[in-house]
Amino acid sequence: MRNIIVGFLGCGNIGCGVWKLLSEFENDIHHRSNVNFQVKRILVRDMKKKRDEIIPEELLTTCAADITDDPEIEMVVEFMGGEEPATQYMLRALENGKTVVTANKMALALNWHDLQATAQKNNAGLYYEAAVCGAIPVIRTTIDSLQANRIEAMMGIINGTTNYILTRMSQEGSAYQDVLRDAQRLGLAEPDPTSDVEGFDAAYKISILSSLAFHARVPFDVVYREGISKVDALDIAYGKEMGYTLKLLAIAKRDGNVIDARVHPTFIPREHPLSSVHGSFNAVFLHGHACQDMMLFGCGAGSAPTASAVVSDMLYAANREKPYHPTFSNENKLAEGLTVTDDWRCSFYIRLTASDKPGVMAYITSCLGEEGISIRNLMQREAVDGHAQIVLITHQAGECAIHKALDAINQGDAKVESLIRVEGK
Amino acid sequence: MRNIIVGFLGCGNIGCGVWKLLSEFENDIHHRSNVNFQVKRILVRDMKKKRDEIIPEELLTTCAADITDDPEIEMVVEFMGGEEPATQYMLRALENGKTVVTANKMALALNWHDLQATAQKNNAGLYYEAAVCGAIPVIRTTIDSLQANRIEAMMGIINGTTNYILTRMSQEGSAYQDVLRDAQRLGLAEPDPTSDVEGFDAAYKISILSSLAFHARVPFDVVYREGISKVDALDIAYGKEMGYTLKLLAIAKRDGNVIDARVHPTFIPREHPLSSVHGSFNAVFLHGHACQDMMLFGCGAGSAPTASAVVSDMLYAANREKPYHPTFSNENKLAEGLTVTDDWRCSFYIRLTASDKPGVMAYITSCLGEEGISIRNLMQREAVDGHAQIVLITHQAGECAIHKALDAINQGDAKVESLIRVEGK
Repeated sequence: MRNIIVGFLGCGNIGCGVWKLLSEFENDIHHRSNVNFQVKRILVRDMKKKRDEIIPEELLTTCAADITDDPEIEMVVEFMGGEEPATQYMLRALENGKTVVTANKMALALNWHDLQATAQKNNAGLYYEAAVCGAIPVIRTTIDSLQANRIEAMMGIINGTTNYILTRMSQEGSAYQDVLRDAQRLGLAEPDPTSDVEGFDAAYKISILSSLAFHARVPFDVVYREGISKVDALDIAYGKEMGYTLKLLAIAKRDGNVIDARVHPTFIPREHPLSSVHGSFNAVFLHGHACQDMMLFGCGAGSAPTASAVVSDMLYAANREKPYHPTFSNENKLAEGLTVTDDWRCSFYIRLTASDKPGVMAYITSCLGEEGISIRNLMQREAVDGHAQIVLITHQAGECAIHKALDAINQGDAKVESLIRVEGK
Repeated sequence: MRNIIVGFLGCGNIGCGVWKLLSEFENDIHHRSNVNFQVKRILVRDMKKKRDEIIPEELLTTCAADITDDPEIEMVVEFMGGEEPATQYMLRALENGKTVVTANKMALALNWHDLQATAQKNNAGLYYEAAVCGAIPVIRTTIDSLQANRIEAMMGIINGTTNYILTRMSQEGSAYQDVLRDAQRLGLAEPDPTSDVEGFDAAYKISILSSLAFHARVPFDVVYREGISKVDALDIAYGKEMGYTLKLLAIAKRDGNVIDARVHPTFIPREHPLSSVHGSFNAVFLHGHACQDMMLFGCGAGSAPTASAVVSDMLYAANREKPYHPTFSNENKLAEGLTVTDDWRCSFYIRLTASDKPGVMAYITSCLGEEGISIRNLMQREAVDGHAQIVLITHQAGECAIHKALDAINQGDAKVESLIRVEGK
């Protein structure tokens, strides 16, 4: 049996989950993989902190170099979260030729170029299944099962907090702020929820996923990002009436050398497989030229599911003779020859209020018509205080054309209240 | 770049799909994997048959030994289908130390012990992602991503033909025979549909999947099997009314050392992720002690999706220094220490006709009560010709207890018309 000496960077929720899984599964791991993981040191901030797992005190250290610079340690597993000091510690471990397994999407998305270059220079492995969608094997599927596919599109519900909030807003008709407060009380949203609700977390993840899917680096900063904090329960209700479910989707599409990558609230048809992904579950739907439609669904967060992915990476790394490296270049910019468009095509949901007088509808439709945009569904509600509510869904149109049309509409007797993109048809 | 000389056994729909994918993806495969697959010979039955792809005639042969015994050929890819002669040819190739990639669930499920033993003896690799659920990476996920899980349950829609038939019966209220005829006309069901509609195909696949999931051989002949040919559209309609969708599920559960493995029509709640898997799509839902709930969804058949899995296996094999072998023994029987139960527990849907006279309902419920079975839902329809229709769903109960209760009921003034198992709650 091969003995692999391991160091942990961090020992919070996920670290304790990995410790627990390694302990309870020790015999199975020996039997199935002929590998023994021996955890030698664990970096913590506070030696005295109460932890979920009973961890021998002599393993704990507050000095990162005890792990990154210990020549005996062959594999470093990082679950500190945040960009720094996690990135520096991982770079140090890779410089020393150690295998690094990380669950840290932020550090990876922002510093992948550095981490991967250092890994390659030192012939070290870098693995990150747990960084995207917890237990769901979306990285492994992309790199090991869909190699003979031109992946044309990925659409994912890859942030559990926002999916929980939108699911409850949709089921109960509640307002965003009320559900957010509830989610915070239940520990499902952070005290500062910005990273989740403004789409940063999902943008990190789609940057990682789309890079692997397109075999070309798609850096974080080219991802268009719009969160859910401005979502109005009224739009969720209107969308529902028209057969659509609202989700925060992370989307990446490639058409020849043009890419679009974006995170925003999105209506999808009720029959779409992503539409029934409720609560804090995650799912990634993709389309490849050979595999056709595919969806992976599961737990995107939580101690045990994330530990499942971390230990899977540890075993995957242990069983490889050569480390895996992506084929794209280690530069922190969009791959040569590709362009990112912000003029993507999709359908659009538009809610307007308009003066209840003759000619307004003609005006709205002519503004859209000017830009070559045609209407698929239209719903007008009885006027209140002389103002009619108009909700419409367009056929496929370009993002730029829509904005031009809406600017024109706003100049007349109507006001655009919401614009939500529609995908999946 | 490494050159791998390949032989094909068979060149039908899937063989042509693999040929096409290898041709159109040649450059990408070179670039991404540093491997070149050179197809040297292709075994066919009829040299003159018209094929979807233009294949140089000098590659074709009707003699299997030209492939299995050619020392230059390193990898043999089999898509002949059927148990024989495919099994003999694969055994021969493995004896000669060649890597075998197969899409043949029947040959694998029935002769895995022989194939695997021969592979191990000759240090050859045996890969079969395409044998179960086409493009969906369910084998890879089980062996490479969920190694640190105790997989407790798997439930799959793993036969596209029956899912197509049940979906249409459910949507249109049509009878089984009518939809089957239509499916045959569309090429979605075979002229002799037995293997699909009687659940053989699904039983082969769940035998393979559950063996890998439980790390213990679960042979085909321990899988309980019941097809869809007796499904009555009336039951689909009643189930729908009560919030359930009918699917042909392949189920495998493990509780300690007791296993149950079965294929039968099953009602699942409308909110269950499997419930929205329509038409010829496949999906496998599983629960692991660490990963929790997970579902993989996609195209379970078809030329391009199956080719996607075959080529993925070819690349996976090419990139491994040591062949992968499962940890369980190569015997064609249930692993030592395990037992298979036919007294599984689930809920049950029961439809009865009863004489419309006082005391009948009391009699039915007392027969169930005798066996400790309680009722969750009950629906009684107005009597026609003095006979009432009664539909009920029980709480969890044992299979044997249900049969005892139904025998007792049949002895009184009621007749059991249908019994359908209910899972997923």
